[in-house]
Amino acid sequence: MTDTAHHTPRIGIIGTGAIGGFYGLMLARAGFDVHFLLRSEYPAVSQRGLQLNSAVHGAISLNPVQAYACAADMPPCDWLLVGTKTTDNVELAPTIAQVAAPDTKVVLLQNGLDVEDRLREHLPESVHLLGGLCYICVHRSGPGIVEHQALGRVNLGYHSGSAANDEVRRQAIVEAGAGLFQQAGIDSQVMPNLHQARWHKLVWNVPYNGLSVLLGASTTALMADESSREMIQALMAEVVLGAKACGHEIAASYAEQMFSMTEQLTDYWPSMYHDHVHKRPLELAAIYARPLAAVRAAGCELPRMQALYQALSFIDRRNR
Amino acid sequence: MTDTAHHTPRIGIIGTGAIGGFYGLMLARAGFDVHFLLRSEYPAVSQRGLQLNSAVHGAISLNPVQAYACAADMPPCDWLLVGTKTTDNVELAPTIAQVAAPDTKVVLLQNGLDVEDRLREHLPESVHLLGGLCYICVHRSGPGIVEHQALGRVNLGYHSGSAANDEVRRQAIVEAGAGLFQQAGIDSQVMPNLHQARWHKLVWNVPYNGLSVLLGASTTALMADESSREMIQALMAEVVLGAKACGHEIAASYAEQMFSMTEQLTDYWPSMYHDHVHKRPLELAAIYARPLAAVRAAGCELPRMQALYQALSFIDRRNR
Repeated sequence: MTDTAHHTPRIGIIGTGAIGGFYGLMLARAGFDVHFLLRSEYPAVSQRGLQLNSAVHGAISLNPVQAYACAADMPPCDWLLVGTKTTDNVELAPTIAQVAAPDTKVVLLQNGLDVEDRLREHLPESVHLLGGLCYICVHRSGPGIVEHQALGRVNLGYHSGSAANDEVRRQAIVEAGAGLFQQAGIDSQVMPNLHQARWHKLVWNVPYNGLSVLLGASTTALMADESSREMIQALMAEVVLGAKACGHEIAASYAEQMFSMTEQLTDYWPSMYHDHVHKRPLELAAIYARPLAAVRAAGCELPRMQALYQALSFIDRRNR
Repeated sequence: MTDTAHHTPRIGIIGTGAIGGFYGLMLARAGFDVHFLLRSEYPAVSQRGLQLNSAVHGAISLNPVQAYACAADMPPCDWLLVGTKTTDNVELAPTIAQVAAPDTKVVLLQNGLDVEDRLREHLPESVHLLGGLCYICVHRSGPGIVEHQALGRVNLGYHSGSAANDEVRRQAIVEAGAGLFQQAGIDSQVMPNLHQARWHKLVWNVPYNGLSVLLGASTTALMADESSREMIQALMAEVVLGAKACGHEIAASYAEQMFSMTEQLTDYWPSMYHDHVHKRPLELAAIYARPLAAVRAAGCELPRMQALYQALSFIDRRNR
């Protein structure tokens, strides 16, 4: 008997942006009991609901929405899917404490390295912390309105908690999490090594997120120019090198796959570009600074990635 | 007896932009017989003359100006100072042939590496070709109007011509060139090795020209931010490394000097930024591509400079 067999799990969405909105709505549509925590968009969503315009699933709306402006009003949740920016992770712990059922599973649907660490130290040990890596092209186009352009897969891995040393239980928890998404029609795989999975995701995020801001260019423009293609390939090769220095082997063919996948992809503006345009802080610590620090600690340098990080730091500071 | 002792030298300015306008006007003011070749600004300059607003020398105007729209109308000149963009160097040879006196000295007042090479092969061997490295903060603010913010030094070196194998004569020619500038109140030094001098100049041009375009930032902004300072220092270190790989020793203290000099300098937008804003081609071949190719041929990689070059290539292509 696994942890989730007792009852229909109640799911809380912490941060209902593009990611939280998409997955929360898909889970609600599949019949799960989903509760959404919002900030600035609470009035719009509580009145007009959530709207998803998906190139894959069509137009889907959810109204009424179990929407909350305040975590204290939410019922205890078995699963908490966190869709907030990594830049806010230190502030998450009090929110999670208010919404967590006993034995809660918290899934950070976020990019970057070690995003769980700063949150973990403020959580009770009983809470299971998982990482979720979303391979999806999605963005908000208005309050409560999510545009889904392509893909959707979520890969899950166990980070820490009371099952850390119990491999069978740990595996059951992650499989239960993947099961939720699968029941909602979303591809989801179990990652035996979350850290390595996060490095894999960086192979895409490091070049495309940063260059979209630096060059003001979407994926189609970046893939159409010889020089940006060379930059992307060189950055991907550095991430593979950095992962290796940190003990995670990534096949060179994986970088090639990400490159050709993006070439086939619909034109896409990565999330960092939207953050820049809306003058929100960029997720530079999670995607650049922490991987670079880990690589440096392993005695390796990634000069192109470091230069990109420095350029983005300059742009980010000036932007706010 | 040196080459220039026969008569008061006649000086032709090929390309009367900020650089050509500044030095030509200063030389005319010092009593030299200066003739200016212009393109789009010919009507304005022939009617209203040249105007220099200099933070060092005050406001200076020259009117009437010996201005020409066509090289064929110019008298033969002993010295030709070329202030056009390096991107046009292949087209210079026919112009020079029309204006050159016997034993003409052509001085390319341009940045970058090997800018003389593509011109050289189209010039008669009798023509002396020199390179001039301008340490100056100057820009155009309107047709025939030049703003001079700081500095002014021109360092000269012999590139090629009929004195190539005659060190005494070569030295006399370069000293005569430096003498022209000195008589006009401009600091000018003789460079025994033009190639090495061009590498020295790249220590400044590679970081500041490129980053001004990439980050949309002037020297003051670039020197005020921790991340851009690190980028500048890392790029300077790469240029020093590249010069060394190509056989030119540059002291690390030289890069430090350039860095602190810029810190003291008045706020300045490098020429590449102006080119970008006016949608003119960027001088990427001279300042980035050729040095990178020379370094690569020497078995060395400069990853930050290469990434900067690739980013600028993308930006340049999109800009036009």
